[in-house]
Amino acid sequence: MKAKRRYSAAFQGEPGAFSHSAALKLLGETVEPIPCASFKGVFEALREDRATHAVIPIENTLHGSVLENYDNLMEFGFPIRGETSVRISHYLIAMPGTRASEIRRAFSHPVALNQCRRFFAEHPRIEPTPFYDTAGSVKMLAEEHPAGAAAVASEAAAAIYGGQILRKNLEDNRKNYTRFFLLTKQKKPPQSATGAWKTSVAFGASNQPGALFKAMACFALRDLNLTKIESRPLPGKPWEYLFYVDFAGSTDDKPVQRALQDLAETTPLFRILGSYRPTP
Amino acid sequence: MKAKRRYSAAFQGEPGAFSHSAALKLLGETVEPIPCASFKGVFEALREDRATHAVIPIENTLHGSVLENYDNLMEFGFPIRGETSVRISHYLIAMPGTRASEIRRAFSHPVALNQCRRFFAEHPRIEPTPFYDTAGSVKMLAEEHPAGAAAVASEAAAAIYGGQILRKNLEDNRKNYTRFFLLTKQKKPPQSATGAWKTSVAFGASNQPGALFKAMACFALRDLNLTKIESRPLPGKPWEYLFYVDFAGSTDDKPVQRALQDLAETTPLFRILGSYRPTP
Repeated sequence: MKAKRRYSAAFQGEPGAFSHSAALKLLGETVEPIPCASFKGVFEALREDRATHAVIPIENTLHGSVLENYDNLMEFGFPIRGETSVRISHYLIAMPGTRASEIRRAFSHPVALNQCRRFFAEHPRIEPTPFYDTAGSVKMLAEEHPAGAAAVASEAAAAIYGGQILRKNLEDNRKNYTRFFLLTKQKKPPQSATGAWKTSVAFGASNQPGALFKAMACFALRDLNLTKIESRPLPGKPWEYLFYVDFAGSTDDKPVQRALQDLAETTPLFRILGSYRPTP
Repeated sequence: MKAKRRYSAAFQGEPGAFSHSAALKLLGETVEPIPCASFKGVFEALREDRATHAVIPIENTLHGSVLENYDNLMEFGFPIRGETSVRISHYLIAMPGTRASEIRRAFSHPVALNQCRRFFAEHPRIEPTPFYDTAGSVKMLAEEHPAGAAAVASEAAAAIYGGQILRKNLEDNRKNYTRFFLLTKQKKPPQSATGAWKTSVAFGASNQPGALFKAMACFALRDLNLTKIESRPLPGKPWEYLFYVDFAGSTDDKPVQRALQDLAETTPLFRILGSYRPTP
């Protein structure tokens, strides 16, 4: 009997990375993880059919948009078919048998260590120790068993590598969320998608006063509600800008179609990035 | 004879960090560096007069806006008095006497190492090794002299710690720039500021269709040219948004004053972050 066809998700980082958690939310617990070294590698895995889906971070509440992935969306052209948010919560993880009082070093990515400054200030005997990846630091503990060592990573990373959680919620700021997009060549949206439809588009605007105002008019005319707007200078084209806009509605809706026709007519560059329903 | 009063600049990172390079551009070569461990620490140094100025990164062409620093701008309320951009270029740095052929490890912040993937792919004998800071990795080489080791950091870091540059421009993407703001309690803008005036403001908008369109109308009515727009959800207030807008002009200009009056009248939250002339 042929095994049931499984979804696979390419993401950046080791199994147990926050992108992996997003993939589990979007595609269910049976999704096969396809870890990649870089964001570009994630897009290449989807292009070469080494994964049925790709999961990419697009913005974080503390660090802002991941412009590199907007560039990749424009370059590779895969449609956005899903969206979810993951709370970034850091756990102190050690191998079973290690006591909390023995811990002298905690390995993790410096960005994660930096988000746990208060914990390290209150525990001066534990030295924050940079490592290339959050989940990868738990993997390293499991493989090398260094003495007096712990890792700072996700709950999922503890489960995957058999780590023991010594302490939860090490992060200073609890309002730390990352938003992820789901990309796939498949037409079918994920079953987990139950939120109201959203659409993401990119368009160019010249450095003329009112250029963005005119573009906004295409949406305002139809009472379409914008949920995100972001501008970036076009590389190599000083004084020209690319805008990324998310708004409520789907490209199947007539008013959305008319707004996008207006936008395509009046802006020098226009691209629909996708319509999708968020996974709560 | 009393020594001439010097400027001092608080910034995040070790001396030789890219923020330090921005401080040198903005305030001249004689500026005293006040290194801080965190962005919040930079704002606190300015509040407590441990520095005459603060220099903070606000956006990067690959990684987007540093939302954490927008939050700090709102919280601390210091006006923006200057702006500059620094090209992020990575150098392979070793202590004098170390030959290129001996290098087996290159220390740096993982974000910097990740921006030099091509170099490491072409030099598989050199292992990228995570460290807490780019400039800090050169400082560590100078202090500890580990065998066969190099660092990936700025040209300035090589000069400060007596490092030798073995190779320039390790970064994969040459379009890697970071934009910095200069903050100070002083009224006088820096001498280096020669560009055309710009103003940054923040305002709230409710989740009503057309709310942003109406806000944009305040600028469009006066032909004021927007150079950046960014939205972020208000933490703890679902469906409400905060917008950051940069536009050409100064709060000394009458049309700017009128646009900002309109904006203050029609938006639920409004703040002028500052008017400034860029340092080229």
